[in-house]
Amino acid sequence: MKRIMVNELSNHINEKAQIKGWVHRIRKLKSITFIILRDRTGLVQCVVNNEEINAGEIKLESVVYIIGTVLESKNNLNPFEVSVEKINIINSSLEELPIEINKENLEVNLDTMLNNRMLSLRHEKVNSIFKIQNIIVEGFREFLNQENFTEISTPKLVEGGAEGGTEVFKVQYFEKQAYLAQSPQFYKQMMVGAGFERVYEVGHVYRAEEHNTNRHLNEYISMDLEIGFIEGVEEIMSLEEKLLKYILKKVTEEGENYLDILKAEVPSIKNKIPRIKFSEAIEILKKEYNKTGLDGDMDPEGEKLIYKYAKEKLGCDFIFLTHYPRKKRPMYTMPCGNEETHSFDLLFRGIEITTGGQRIHEYSMLIENMRYKGLNPENYESYTSNFKYGMPPHGGLAIGLERITFKLLGFENVREASLIPRDRTRLMP
Amino acid sequence: MKRIMVNELSNHINEKAQIKGWVHRIRKLKSITFIILRDRTGLVQCVVNNEEINAGEIKLESVVYIIGTVLESKNNLNPFEVSVEKINIINSSLEELPIEINKENLEVNLDTMLNNRMLSLRHEKVNSIFKIQNIIVEGFREFLNQENFTEISTPKLVEGGAEGGTEVFKVQYFEKQAYLAQSPQFYKQMMVGAGFERVYEVGHVYRAEEHNTNRHLNEYISMDLEIGFIEGVEEIMSLEEKLLKYILKKVTEEGENYLDILKAEVPSIKNKIPRIKFSEAIEILKKEYNKTGLDGDMDPEGEKLIYKYAKEKLGCDFIFLTHYPRKKRPMYTMPCGNEETHSFDLLFRGIEITTGGQRIHEYSMLIENMRYKGLNPENYESYTSNFKYGMPPHGGLAIGLERITFKLLGFENVREASLIPRDRTRLMP
Repeated sequence: MKRIMVNELSNHINEKAQIKGWVHRIRKLKSITFIILRDRTGLVQCVVNNEEINAGEIKLESVVYIIGTVLESKNNLNPFEVSVEKINIINSSLEELPIEINKENLEVNLDTMLNNRMLSLRHEKVNSIFKIQNIIVEGFREFLNQENFTEISTPKLVEGGAEGGTEVFKVQYFEKQAYLAQSPQFYKQMMVGAGFERVYEVGHVYRAEEHNTNRHLNEYISMDLEIGFIEGVEEIMSLEEKLLKYILKKVTEEGENYLDILKAEVPSIKNKIPRIKFSEAIEILKKEYNKTGLDGDMDPEGEKLIYKYAKEKLGCDFIFLTHYPRKKRPMYTMPCGNEETHSFDLLFRGIEITTGGQRIHEYSMLIENMRYKGLNPENYESYTSNFKYGMPPHGGLAIGLERITFKLLGFENVREASLIPRDRTRLMP
Repeated sequence: MKRIMVNELSNHINEKAQIKGWVHRIRKLKSITFIILRDRTGLVQCVVNNEEINAGEIKLESVVYIIGTVLESKNNLNPFEVSVEKINIINSSLEELPIEINKENLEVNLDTMLNNRMLSLRHEKVNSIFKIQNIIVEGFREFLNQENFTEISTPKLVEGGAEGGTEVFKVQYFEKQAYLAQSPQFYKQMMVGAGFERVYEVGHVYRAEEHNTNRHLNEYISMDLEIGFIEGVEEIMSLEEKLLKYILKKVTEEGENYLDILKAEVPSIKNKIPRIKFSEAIEILKKEYNKTGLDGDMDPEGEKLIYKYAKEKLGCDFIFLTHYPRKKRPMYTMPCGNEETHSFDLLFRGIEITTGGQRIHEYSMLIENMRYKGLNPENYESYTSNFKYGMPPHGGLAIGLERITFKLLGFENVREASLIPRDRTRLMP
């Protein structure tokens, strides 16, 4: 007998059907027992006659199949129910559940939720996070495919600490020392130069950052793109604007059900996302909020205040900060005058979700800028050699997937938006 | 002036247009110079009047823009050409090219090709490999999305050597020892149990294998799937059959141009892929090819001979070997009697491209099987605990992306189908 999914039952009213899934809830009354069965498509009430079947002892979250007749009904879940003829346990739960997952909210702390990840993910609200996250990723890919980008997959085992940072994980690679890639930066630039021109990658990146905050993960998913033959950095920001509009529209349309479950509000981008210079932002922080002492980069408080400003004064949940100081941006960033760069961050609801910019495409400028940053170009030959053979003007950006997800859904901690997070202390499950 | 792509020029006959790209070839005659310009969409012949412009000294692979009139013409590349009014070097090549990339074939050895990866990828034949590879990945995702699978992304930094193997890369994770995941096996099973039921992942996996062969990579892309509520392993094989048919059809249709360039022949799967038991395959090798001495697993020669058999006797480029010996399969594999398992490999043109099978879903059977395999269940508690709370019957498989690509395209070495390969000695570029 073919399995019917819960969301298909309405096509089988007054027919006999087999459903399979987990026992979500049991309520035993005198003559009947209600079993709520859950499969990947939803919940359904199943009614058992206690005189015929003893179902009251079945353990919650056991896997069962039920054969019964689909009847019209009035209940909280559906306009139908299943009148049970047969119920069979496929795989019983063996122990008391460590967390309760059939309540409206999963009332456990973050650690307990993550320690019991398989179970917590069965909760509708937790599950829905990753359905939304998938729509974001699909939107990213769809939009860029339409714009003639090529998807790439670049190595995460690299010989050098790719961007010269120190916060890299070390890997013993046979006789050699390797590192886990902090970003696909060098490779995506290389792939622009390799003739793909427009590339993107959705992949893991690794940061051996010591601090354990609500906004950092040590392994996270970066949605990277890089585009050749640009005229300037504004093109990159405009592309991100269009990309985000596309993604948010898709989330709104295809994720409606999940958004309801999560009570999340998707921001709309009416026209353009405001763009202000980093130096202006510093001025605004000083003037409007009395915040000083920022040297070339935002701190979390600064980001929150700038968001407040963007939201209240400019009416937008997003804001681009542009022209970051040269001394704070990586050596591959295109300078803009002596002090600034053609670069940007995108803040969303008080947190940086994107870093981007135009890159240097001329060999001699790159070498010069490396020296300016105190780096020895000889250590980067595998990278710089690409610039000897016709690298087009280019730029790109990276969006942190877990970050955009957790802010979109209004969570306090980025870990909630990671299927299996890795942080300063967590390597399990 | 807006950039026009080469494949759009036919819409602009007798108009002025700007094109941008790389200088693919230059031929200077007495009064005119032919420049072949290449962008991501193709090649076009540009004609320069030597009296007006001195273009003969432009270096190959420089990035240029050209403004000129699009004219109808007869040449090898297109039914049109560009009569150049202006040519401007955006970024000149600085040195002689280390490899020649404007010949029909890239006549360099594999190491030289990989050492000069940005340049070698500019060659049409090399570039086309990854266009085909992308169609394979897109086909994998599309088919599974239609079948209601959920895409997942699981951690590559794990605390235990996930499957108990020894060939794992070690990572220093702050105070802890971590490993690079050999497969998403445990996590995809967990996600089936977490209620997604049907999941897939396209992601990196890591194997610290010492041997340097033409079929191994130390970092490669695994296309994994796992499916809950199955009746048996045959379902998994049937799903793969349908999946492969879908992918091959998509490659044939959307990759036609690239297949022509690569002179590759896509196999057709007429009806079913033949399924023979592993033990039968051993008998066939003995009887037909006098090959003996295989103990529970195929060797490369065995795989090649079984392919020969499948191709010549059964008329198929693919063959499933089923019922692998229990002693050779991992502890999570569902036993079939005392000696065999509900498992399979799929061979394609003489190489294993898939390993799959049904998994154990009952806690007690899992613990027992771990002991049978000589493992201590206490070391796997984070994994086994999932089986206490209603794990449905399930199974899955993994397809090696580079392997299916290189065999589909008829290459001798899997490295050719890896954008940036990692092998026993190669960590660069």
